[in-house]
Amino acid sequence: MRSATTDGSAANTSRAAPPSKASAGAAHSRNNEVTHQDRTGQRKSRDMSNTNAQKIGFIGLGIMGAPMAGHLLEAGHQLYVNTRGPVPEPFASKAMVCATATDVARQADVIFLMVPDTPDVEKVLFGEGGVAAGLTQGKVVVDCSSIDPIATKEFARRILDLGCGYVDAPVSGGEVGAKAASLTIMCGGDEGTFGRVRPLLEKMGKNITLVGNAGDGQVCKVANQIIVALNIAAVGEALVFASKAGADPAKVRQALMGGFASSRILEVHGERMIKRTFAPGFRIALHQKDLNLALQGARSLGVALPQTASAAQLMNACAALGFGQEDHSALVRALEAMANHPVAQA
Amino acid sequence: MRSATTDGSAANTSRAAPPSKASAGAAHSRNNEVTHQDRTGQRKSRDMSNTNAQKIGFIGLGIMGAPMAGHLLEAGHQLYVNTRGPVPEPFASKAMVCATATDVARQADVIFLMVPDTPDVEKVLFGEGGVAAGLTQGKVVVDCSSIDPIATKEFARRILDLGCGYVDAPVSGGEVGAKAASLTIMCGGDEGTFGRVRPLLEKMGKNITLVGNAGDGQVCKVANQIIVALNIAAVGEALVFASKAGADPAKVRQALMGGFASSRILEVHGERMIKRTFAPGFRIALHQKDLNLALQGARSLGVALPQTASAAQLMNACAALGFGQEDHSALVRALEAMANHPVAQA
Amino acid sequence: MRSATTDGSAANTSRAAPPSKASAGAAHSRNNEVTHQDRTGQRKSRDMSNTNAQKIGFIGLGIMGAPMAGHLLEAGHQLYVNTRGPVPEPFASKAMVCATATDVARQADVIFLMVPDTPDVEKVLFGEGGVAAGLTQGKVVVDCSSIDPIATKEFARRILDLGCGYVDAPVSGGEVGAKAASLTIMCGGDEGTFGRVRPLLEKMGKNITLVGNAGDGQVCKVANQIIVALNIAAVGEALVFASKAGADPAKVRQALMGGFASSRILEVHGERMIKRTFAPGFRIALHQKDLNLALQGARSLGVALPQTASAAQLMNACAALGFGQEDHSALVRALEAMANHPVAQA
Amino acid sequence: MRSATTDGSAANTSRAAPPSKASAGAAHSRNNEVTHQDRTGQRKSRDMSNTNAQKIGFIGLGIMGAPMAGHLLEAGHQLYVNTRGPVPEPFASKAMVCATATDVARQADVIFLMVPDTPDVEKVLFGEGGVAAGLTQGKVVVDCSSIDPIATKEFARRILDLGCGYVDAPVSGGEVGAKAASLTIMCGGDEGTFGRVRPLLEKMGKNITLVGNAGDGQVCKVANQIIVALNIAAVGEALVFASKAGADPAKVRQALMGGFASSRILEVHGERMIKRTFAPGFRIALHQKDLNLALQGARSLGVALPQTASAAQLMNACAALGFGQEDHSALVRALEAMANHPVAQA
Repeated sequence: MRSATTDGSAANTSRAAPPSKASAGAAHSRNNEVTHQDRTGQRKSRDMSNTNAQKIGFIGLGIMGAPMAGHLLEAGHQLYVNTRGPVPEPFASKAMVCATATDVARQADVIFLMVPDTPDVEKVLFGEGGVAAGLTQGKVVVDCSSIDPIATKEFARRILDLGCGYVDAPVSGGEVGAKAASLTIMCGGDEGTFGRVRPLLEKMGKNITLVGNAGDGQVCKVANQIIVALNIAAVGEALVFASKAGADPAKVRQALMGGFASSRILEVHGERMIKRTFAPGFRIALHQKDLNLALQGARSLGVALPQTASAAQLMNACAALGFGQEDHSALVRALEAMANHPVAQA
Repeated sequence: MRSATTDGSAANTSRAAPPSKASAGAAHSRNNEVTHQDRTGQRKSRDMSNTNAQKIGFIGLGIMGAPMAGHLLEAGHQLYVNTRGPVPEPFASKAMVCATATDVARQADVIFLMVPDTPDVEKVLFGEGGVAAGLTQGKVVVDCSSIDPIATKEFARRILDLGCGYVDAPVSGGEVGAKAASLTIMCGGDEGTFGRVRPLLEKMGKNITLVGNAGDGQVCKVANQIIVALNIAAVGEALVFASKAGADPAKVRQALMGGFASSRILEVHGERMIKRTFAPGFRIALHQKDLNLALQGARSLGVALPQTASAAQLMNACAALGFGQEDHSALVRALEAMANHPVAQA
Repeated sequence: MRSATTDGSAANTSRAAPPSKASAGAAHSRNNEVTHQDRTGQRKSRDMSNTNAQKIGFIGLGIMGAPMAGHLLEAGHQLYVNTRGPVPEPFASKAMVCATATDVARQADVIFLMVPDTPDVEKVLFGEGGVAAGLTQGKVVVDCSSIDPIATKEFARRILDLGCGYVDAPVSGGEVGAKAASLTIMCGGDEGTFGRVRPLLEKMGKNITLVGNAGDGQVCKVANQIIVALNIAAVGEALVFASKAGADPAKVRQALMGGFASSRILEVHGERMIKRTFAPGFRIALHQKDLNLALQGARSLGVALPQTASAAQLMNACAALGFGQEDHSALVRALEAMANHPVAQA
Repeated sequence: MRSATTDGSAANTSRAAPPSKASAGAAHSRNNEVTHQDRTGQRKSRDMSNTNAQKIGFIGLGIMGAPMAGHLLEAGHQLYVNTRGPVPEPFASKAMVCATATDVARQADVIFLMVPDTPDVEKVLFGEGGVAAGLTQGKVVVDCSSIDPIATKEFARRILDLGCGYVDAPVSGGEVGAKAASLTIMCGGDEGTFGRVRPLLEKMGKNITLVGNAGDGQVCKVANQIIVALNIAAVGEALVFASKAGADPAKVRQALMGGFASSRILEVHGERMIKRTFAPGFRIALHQKDLNLALQGARSLGVALPQTASAAQLMNACAALGFGQEDHSALVRALEAMANHPVAQA
């Protein structure tokens, strides 16, 4: 928190950039910084101009988390943040930087998580200095990370046992979608809690669905990543086949766009394969992680995913060939290596 | 042919119902027989209203061929037909029924084929009584069958050696598309020949593309069938996973429709999987044939299609389980059997 | 046949190298060539020394067929041969070279086939100048080719309808086994016919099993080729994994040889992978053909072979990478390409 | 240690069978050897004949660990044990039962681990009350568990940093092999340390190989499990194909036993598939865990294992169908479900 005088958590929280009292107001009309500077005065005025301003925690200010949290900040909410690396702007100067996730949970009413993987979520929630230790009844945890659906059900249960709400809300759309606030957000949780956080999610995304109970958002995200990976592989096999058979892959793609083969992937990733534009977008290495979630889930649930399992091996091949940091449309490169033939020349 | 007096092929062609000159008009009011009977009279009047009427051959009046040929008939063209089984209406009464493919080729200027498989096309073209024997310079063969691209290149070469044109023009869209004249048609051939037959193809389909040289239409069709099969498998794996994980597959499909996972298959076949509407549509048994074309082609060309090969085995499983005559969206049933869990209740 | 005077088939058969009457006897004591020249005299004497000598047809004197037929010749049988290319020695000089398969069938009592593929067998048996036209009741056809089991059942039925016997007897062991008369021979047919040809098969192989009825020999050969391919792939994946993980593949192979992972393939092909000795042996291109038989059969029968289908794609990749004419142990090269890591240095 | 009266570690260790009161205390402040020496007459004589008796720790007395540790006990070594559940006989009465792994490490010179999975090994070694806390320079840790090779390299490094030795020594052969002291043991470590523990390993197994450095034993075990799984799948596909094609699978297996398809798996697991004897043996659920190690390793290393990935999905299907606790030869049941046809009747 800003200062030891405003609350008891001085030891735990800090403000990265000390505020300058005088100048803040005018300069930051849009971000309403003065509010932060002078809580007793300006703060009140912001609350007046934004009667819905909430105390929101955001843990994980990475490539995705930073722009997502940024939209909440821009909407006038008070943010309490915690992240592994250095705190980026504008959070360093405009948000309350907390030393621990526990502190975030103590200060905020709704706590968002956007961290890499299942163990990270577990640690952030229940590890030392974790969210759970700071929660009080009625607060809500919203996990936007893409993690294991089965673990999510367990995490949700433990948070609910504390008298709090839990919504899993993984997103699709990548960095571009995060910046443009156009993410697809797949939610799991009860309707009441979802209704409470929905206005916040709407600041970050456009296509927001309550799929079902806790964990179902993660299930839906896994389903999304299965389809996306397999549709990429489908387009890849079709174009490699067509190209090596002597046809023009661009014309083939064009001919297929109107029929049953049409898909967003044929449109976007198909074009990438032909134009050789493999700068990410969504990296193969990340999609590998997501397919691993699918396959671990499949093993736990007793589901066979032969196509997903096979596509995951193609991604391994891509990584082995040095393309792990390229866009996932570069999955076609594994097929090209096996056919000893590129879909098109660079 | 209509009569021995109009041409020399009386011995070879026949009219399913021999016309009686006098009474024809009244007897066949429905089939407009008089036109055929009295070319110089009634026919002329039709020809006047359709100055582009051509002599068109059509070999193969099956489930797909009949409606396709029907559109050509309706457009006022003179049809010369040959098919394996009984000649269906309206062709029996309104088209010239030829005893052999050779006869069709002798009479018509453009000869369409719509037969089941590569050996059928080979036999119809080059077997005894085949098309090749009846061709003269300048005629055009249009093969709408879905067959082996590599064999097609050879067939085309042999027809071109006779001084004729060749266009492979396989279609996508099924019986529904054939009846509605909304087929997607993927063509291979030279531009001149394509330009000549394009107006005829436009009577049968909407999305008509010259993909490239002879064989490229078939290549494109194979690419189409690869993508369609793999997108079905993708949606199948995603929905089986989601459903067994406890989520509502209908809500998952809905949530995915707006993002990168969106496709015609998610829309149409995804809904079929959820609503359990597996009446064809396009049968698994036919898709098995098409994937076999893909895999045989892959072997010939030196292309690895791991996802297609795996999906073909899922289709085998469907057939083994008794679903070979269901719509290809029933591919999900193989995944359901392996997961011991249906996506949804019937 | 030898001469126009001995039978009526002079026009159809020929002796490639005319015998020199004088010297033959002494020079060819072992092969007793004079006997062939003078049936009524010398021949009788041979028959006396080999009371089991039979008139045997052999169609297909390729890499496998020639050594196999050679063993029958050495055993003192009279051979009637027909092959696509030039007739190799010793058959050109010591066997009756027939112009057509029909002639072979007319002269011989047991007719062996060793030709490349299903259509070849069909043509040799039932095509123009084929075996069927020369058969008379009581003769036996033995097909040593590796072909489609389902087609075999049909071929057998048609031969049996002629009052003849049919045994399918595909072999395993390659050129080395053919030369060493150590082939494994998997037979299908009735016990009586099998018993009749068994002594002949014993001249060519060591492990001879009557698996079941007509076609079951081919079924067994397909099963053999499935296991061999998949065991190669198994050893390949294990060694690529171990090697890229930093272990010495030779030591890993050694450690595994005594346990449940032990197999002929680990022993022989595993060593090839480590020592990089990919000279055939049994070529990938031939194994591709055999896996295709398996997969076509699987489609017909309603069987899913996911592992075989996947391995076939790895073989396609090998072919694409230029290794189609290497030994099938080179299947590991596809895996090495995907891992960007060789099991061992050449 | 045995009792509160004999040493100061009463809180940590216990002896199920009361110790001999007189001698223990002073003599064994640290190692408490006399107790074992002078327990009864027999024991003493054995110890005399075994001048090489060592102080050995064994952590994990489950289905595998108990018989393995038993052989060490029978060989006259002094055992210090710790396990999760109740301590089984003969350890409860004849070994020193330690309350923690730390205690085991304090007392023993060589500490064996035989626990289920990677996190278990990590916890036993480095968790609270773990082995590391009790180690002093010169002691040796031998991990017989089957775990992640990459994690093993890290564990080894940390143990070596303490001035101790580390050998990973996963085993193959199952409960039967453990009881019969016929396990195959695949070791990783330096030659000196391996040489020191080899005599102990020889009490438990027969085929003991130093594959390479730390972790290479685990790598080799993964390679073993890959081959075993894929050879089972190979035999399964071959037998399902043969059986549905109408051949007798028992005769097919017999015919294949002498050729290139021969393997321990064809022999043992092939017979199980035909005789329907699926009582374990090695359970599918455990093999799923091992294939997961392979696939996680493959992802980390950049290796594509398409066949292993596909086989893992077949195992998922087995589990879904209720066969997860059957022997891994029951993998064939997934293929049978997909073919809608059993290899043989029960």
